Amino acid sequence: MYTLTGFRNSPDKGRALARDFRVRWTLEELGQPYQMKGVTFAELEEASYKSQHHPFGQIPSWTDGKIELFESGAIVLHLALKHDGLLPQDDRLRSRALAWLFAALDTVEPPIWDWDLARMTESNSPWYAQREPLLLARISKRLEDLSQWLGRSEWLDGPFTIGDLMMVTVLRRLQGSGILERHPIVASYVDRAEQRPAFCRAFAAQRLVRN
Amino acid sequence: MYTLTGFRNSPDKGRALARDFRVRWTLEELGQPYQMKGVTFAELEEASYKSQHHPFGQIPSWTDGKIELFESGAIVLHLALKHDGLLPQDDRLRSRALAWLFAALDTVEPPIWDWDLARMTESNSPWYAQREPLLLARISKRLEDLSQWLGRSEWLDGPFTIGDLMMVTVLRRLQGSGILERHPIVASYVDRAEQRPAFCRAFAAQRLVRN
Repeated sequence: MYTLTGFRNSPDKGRALARDFRVRWTLEELGQPYQMKGVTFAELEEASYKSQHHPFGQIPSWTDGKIELFESGAIVLHLALKHDGLLPQDDRLRSRALAWLFAALDTVEPPIWDWDLARMTESNSPWYAQREPLLLARISKRLEDLSQWLGRSEWLDGPFTIGDLMMVTVLRRLQGSGILERHPIVASYVDRAEQRPAFCRAFAAQRLVRN
Repeated sequence: MYTLTGFRNSPDKGRALARDFRVRWTLEELGQPYQMKGVTFAELEEASYKSQHHPFGQIPSWTDGKIELFESGAIVLHLALKHDGLLPQDDRLRSRALAWLFAALDTVEPPIWDWDLARMTESNSPWYAQREPLLLARISKRLEDLSQWLGRSEWLDGPFTIGDLMMVTVLRRLQGSGILERHPIVASYVDRAEQRPAFCRAFAAQRLVRN
């Protein structure tokens, strides 16, 4: 049985924005049972959590009882390599799914996260009003390129893969801001993914704990 | 023969900080021959580069003649899955290498990149002096946890893997800033990696083009 560690009380009040949700959704797509373990922010900073579960004191961490893993990208990838369903067998499509997994985390998420972090920590600062347009412009550039790539496709490259799953969790952080609505191709892509039965099961399960 | 695309004229003047260097180093570790293709900043923004090579108009991109890949993390991982040398066979160590690959890109690089980006784009702004301590504190937090983890170990988890390779390329961006020197365990770790013959070959090759 897999054990996934996430926040005991998530700051997003059930919106499923914390990074453990990516693993929940992956486990639901792959049909793998799991149990959740909740930690507090204070527990993340304990030396024992860092040495046993996550060297940088973050969530998620994950274990199968033998292997301890951290980093949502690594856990999702490890599970997709182990269980069929989110990585195509075809060599080209499989590699492309990896490219999109990293693109979601390393090209699309950074500007979105920077803006969200600035909203949380610097919104009362005298410079916030001047910096925000800069931060939003970086997000728009990514969403324009993503729209161009997606066009009329259902998913990023062939079937739904870990690349799509990760990209959608990254984009969901923009919901409620009005930004996604200015990029309708991207907005529909997110909607489509949220209609997947595995997404719905994962979302309902995390909401039960957090709301 | 593999083809790797990087900047024709790198802005770092041969310091090997651009993200194609990660792939060069990987190819040297794995003993795989390759050719380089140079692009200009303007070419990255062309529709044909985005549709054929990199949807977000960045470097590196890579091809084996059949598969086109983008994102340094994905290319390095694809190569390490295909050729022996940077991913242990043991299941636990192999998964841990993935965790460190993602930790380098998604936990350690973001604060380093944010600070570097702020230096490049906001250093003349009236708020830079107030924001910089905040940015530096985020970097220190990561380097403290990394020091704690490394202790007296040679590499992050067992043998040298793609996790170490990526972590070192991320940390090298701090060279010359005086920050690494305040974390001697991390500084020695970077030094050790830079003494690897494959690193030296990759560094010399990129310097020939860029200096």
